[in-house]
Parts: sequence; C-alpha cells; structure tokens
Amino acid sequence: MTERSGLAERVLQGDRTALARLITWAENGDPRFAGELARLWSRVGRAWRVGVTGPPGVGKSTLVDELARLLRAESKSVGVVAVDPSSPYTGGALLGDRIRMEDHTLDAGVFIRSMASRGSHGGLARAATSACDVVDAFGFDRILLETVGVGQAEYDVLDAADTIVVVLCPGAGDSIQAMKAGLLEVADVLVVNKAELPGSDRLLNDLTEAVHVRFLEREWKVPVVAASAGTRFGVEAVLAAVEEHRVHVERSGLELARRRKRAAQVRHAVNEALAEALWVENGWSARIERDLAAGRSPHEVAAALLSEVVNGLHKPSEVKR
Amino acid sequence: MTERSGLAERVLQGDRTALARLITWAENGDPRFAGELARLWSRVGRAWRVGVTGPPGVGKSTLVDELARLLRAESKSVGVVAVDPSSPYTGGALLGDRIRMEDHTLDAGVFIRSMASRGSHGGLARAATSACDVVDAFGFDRILLETVGVGQAEYDVLDAADTIVVVLCPGAGDSIQAMKAGLLEVADVLVVNKAELPGSDRLLNDLTEAVHVRFLEREWKVPVVAASAGTRFGVEAVLAAVEEHRVHVERSGLELARRRKRAAQVRHAVNEALAEALWVENGWSARIERDLAAGRSPHEVAAALLSEVVNGLHKPSEVKR
Repeated sequence: MTERSGLAERVLQGDRTALARLITWAENGDPRFAGELARLWSRVGRAWRVGVTGPPGVGKSTLVDELARLLRAESKSVGVVAVDPSSPYTGGALLGDRIRMEDHTLDAGVFIRSMASRGSHGGLARAATSACDVVDAFGFDRILLETVGVGQAEYDVLDAADTIVVVLCPGAGDSIQAMKAGLLEVADVLVVNKAELPGSDRLLNDLTEAVHVRFLEREWKVPVVAASAGTRFGVEAVLAAVEEHRVHVERSGLELARRRKRAAQVRHAVNEALAEALWVENGWSARIERDLAAGRSPHEVAAALLSEVVNGLHKPSEVKR
Repeated sequence: MTERSGLAERVLQGDRTALARLITWAENGDPRFAGELARLWSRVGRAWRVGVTGPPGVGKSTLVDELARLLRAESKSVGVVAVDPSSPYTGGALLGDRIRMEDHTLDAGVFIRSMASRGSHGGLARAATSACDVVDAFGFDRILLETVGVGQAEYDVLDAADTIVVVLCPGAGDSIQAMKAGLLEVADVLVVNKAELPGSDRLLNDLTEAVHVRFLEREWKVPVVAASAGTRFGVEAVLAAVEEHRVHVERSGLELARRRKRAAQVRHAVNEALAEALWVENGWSARIERDLAAGRSPHEVAAALLSEVVNGLHKPSEVKR
C-alpha cells in the first residue's frame, strides 16, 4: 500500500482503506486531519445524515441494520457510523462491528465504522462529525449515525445529523427517562420499537399526544411510527418518515440550517482550543496565581490578560462596534 | 453629598452611602467598579465570610439574623449579604431588607444588603464576591452571605465564602433533594434547623452518618448541629462550629485556599469576557458563517480564528512550552 498520494486523494478515488484511516485520524485528533478534510471539503454535503438514538436496549442497532438493508434494496449506498461513548475502543464498539459485518461485508455499497469515546465529550462529537464528513465525501448516499441517547455527549454527536430518529420501546423505564431528559425535543421522527410488546399502544398514544402538545407551533409535525425491527415490521414506515423529513428540510433551507450547525461546532472547537492555548500553553493559570500573590486585585489581573488578547486582534472594519 | 472623592476613598472613611453605592456598581457590572476595588484591595481579606445556604423554607434568614445578633453581642461588626437569584430586584430582596432592618437599622456595627439576579449566573457570583470584598474593606469583622441552595448559580455564589453552613430541616422533602444535589459536599458545617419538629433526630442521625462515611479521609470533620433559630436554641453552637472551622482553615493555609478560589473566579471572568469580545464585539460569529458560506472547511475557519489570537500574544519566556 503506497503512501505517496494523500489520504484525501485516495478517498476520492474510492479507496476504502484510506477512508478508514482518515476516520482514525479524526478519532485520534491527528493534526494532519484538517488538511485532508480541506481537500475533500468541496465533496462534502451530498449525503443525508440520519441520527438514530435512544436508551440502551430499545433495538437501535437492529433498526439501523434494517434501514441499511432497505436503502440497499433501493440501490442507495449507506455508511454506518456507530458511536458508543461508554465503551472503550477495544470493547463493545469492535464487537458491534464484527456482528454487523456478517450481513454487509461483501457489499461495496455499505461501509460500517464504530467509534468509541476518546478524550473530551466535545472531542467525540467533533470526531463523529468528521467521520460523517469523510464518509460523505467518499460518496455514500445516506449515513446512519447511531448513538445511545443518555447524556450531553450524545446530544452533541446528534449535531452531525440532518434527521434525528429517536427510538423508544414499551415497558422500559428508560423510555420515560428519555422523554424527561429531552430526547423528545430533538426528535424529527419518533419510533416505538418492539411494538409487539405489551404497552406499545399506550406509549404510541402518549408520545403522539406529547409531540402534538409540545410542537403545536412547529412546521414539521414529528411522526410517531410503530415498528419491530427484529421482524422487519414498520421499517419501511420509518424510512418513509425520514425521507419525508429530508424533503421538508430541503424545501425550508437546508444549506442555511447546516451552516448554522457547522458554525456552532466551529465556535465550540475554537473555544476549547483557545482555553488550552491560553490557560495551559501560555501559562495564564500560573500567571493569575502569581499576580494575585503579588497583591493585585482580581479585576486588574483579569483586565491585564484580556487586554493582551484583545489588543493583538485585527479589528474587522466591517463589524459595527 | 459631594462626589469629589472616589467611592473607594469614602468607603475607607466609613461612608455607608458610598459602600451601598459601590455594591450597586458591582451588581450592575459598572465598568468603574474595577478601579475602585483596586484602590480598596489592600484592605480586603480581614473579614471572615460565612456562606449560609439551604433549600427554601428551612429558616436561613432567621438563623442569619440570630447569628448577627450573637456576633454583635461579642462586639464583632457584621455585614449581611443576602443573595436571591430567583426574585427580581424589586421583589423579595427588598422586602427582606425592610423586615430585617427593623432589628438592626440603628446599629452602626451592622450592614445589610440584599442582591438579586442580574444577567448571567456567573455575573451574580461575581457581584456577590465583589459585594463581600467591599464590605470586607469597609472593616466588618464577619460577613454572612445568605443564598438559597437550589442550583448552579447558588453554588457559584458560595465560592465567595470561607466557611459554608448548610441549613436543612426535618420533614422537608427538599432536604433530601439538597443532599442528593450535592449540598452536603460543599458543607463545612451542617445545621438541622427547626429541631423541635418531628423527624429531627432521624435527620440528625442520617446526616451524621452521611458525613462520616463521605468525608472519612478529610481533615475537617463536618459537625452536624441541631438548632431552632426561631427560639434562639442552638445558635451559639452553630457560631462555635463556624469559629472552629475558621481556626482550622487559618491553620491549614488560608491564604493559599483563598488565592485558589480567586484564581478560579478570575479564570471564569476572563473566559466570559473573552467570549463576549471575540464572538460578539469582534464579529467572529458572523465571520464563521461568512467563511463557511464561502466554502471553507470548518477546520480551516477555526484555525484562522485561533491563529489571530495566539499570534497576537506575548509569549511568557518563563513558561515551559
């Protein structure tokens, strides 16, 4: 395997090894990643990114597999990015890969990648977004981004998605927790999976009522779909709801919506990097302690540090001040 | 009332109107405050600051009043700063002032000030700290900083305190909530108020056991004190526990502990001001959207912004890089 040409170039030529490698760079925060992504950037934005989330045990992976199968039947290529912030890299994530590979491994129209938590929560969300970007540039039509919906890290990961599918199932106390924790608020499509279980009608009704009341004023009416991914029931309906949402978003200004999300991500990344540069590398933390020990007031110390940054800036002339 | 001399100078001369005015500046984030505090700074650090917190309805205000009364009986001067983040300025805070004033209004050894939430949570904590600084510089021996213990904003306010007294009472479900919410973790002294109510023995035992188990390895053993501030029972014991904690902290490195808290506060303030300066005033938010719209990749956009700050910095030579 030659290393002569860059990973970006090889990804554009359809090299799946390069694709996997580039995602690893993103995952590890490799400084070379930014340059490669810049070379791919003009090809990013064609794939539709579907986030699939929900509490543990509701059957997200099965649903993702069945959605991938359906999309393949429609001759759409599918990238799957499965994020598991709770499991170490050598644990669940890899095992998940192996189980999934059995079905799709020989199909060039499918790419499956598991990612696990590395470093900060913000880092995971960035890595997941970057992975989607690379899979997108490679040329896949749809990306299924699976993440367990339990905390802030997972919500941040969902920022990479164009459509968010929240999966719940009857009888799991977790589903109620999920509703309380705000999963409902981020859902574009709600799925009651394992619909054969007792209590599914009640959950369907509760959710339908909840979204009706909460989202009365919104343009997109969140559909609540009953499914049983294990027996392939309802998966077409889920996919149809996702496609409907895609059409809705594309009509109402997709580019702007995506750019806003990107802008928020850039902002987070800059803030994190700035904190690292100033407080750690530039020694501001130590300086504060020294200045306070020397008897300077907190406001003076803060003002001195701030002025160093603000005075060094290029003031953009076009911005009102 | 002449405005010739600065507020700081007048505070040092014992002018209570100037004291009140300077706290208002701190509360409003008036840019003139920093300069005045710098002039007072060498006089800050002599008062002992006692934070009194707990769920609503446990009798914090009554306890604070009784502690003030006891301290006055010992000829110590007392400043009371009552923070109520939930009530608008014209609401509960002012009413509280009026009720309290009846007892102490003619006593020059007491100063009482209520503060209410303005702007950001971080802003409230800074204002409370600044108010304590000014009251401290004025020359009061003890400062009682009262805040309702219900959320992050209140915990941040407690950063201004040298000793934290957490007040609970039997029968209030809120007390259990407070324990769960982590009030126990920040307590230097625990008070079971309204000890005449049924269930107080049980709460005392539960708390004693809880602090014993949780703080086994800590040097300071958190005392659990029964009190009934309304009937003046146990208030001496609370004050004795506070004084014991003061002696303990002074022995184990008060200056360093205080400087670390200050350093954390400066860091928060700088980060907030920096975000305002960069994203709002310097127009970075708008720039990101423009650059993304022009087709630049997120990493390029982030790197460009970062380099502007980092290149403009004076690199401190003594810091290892």
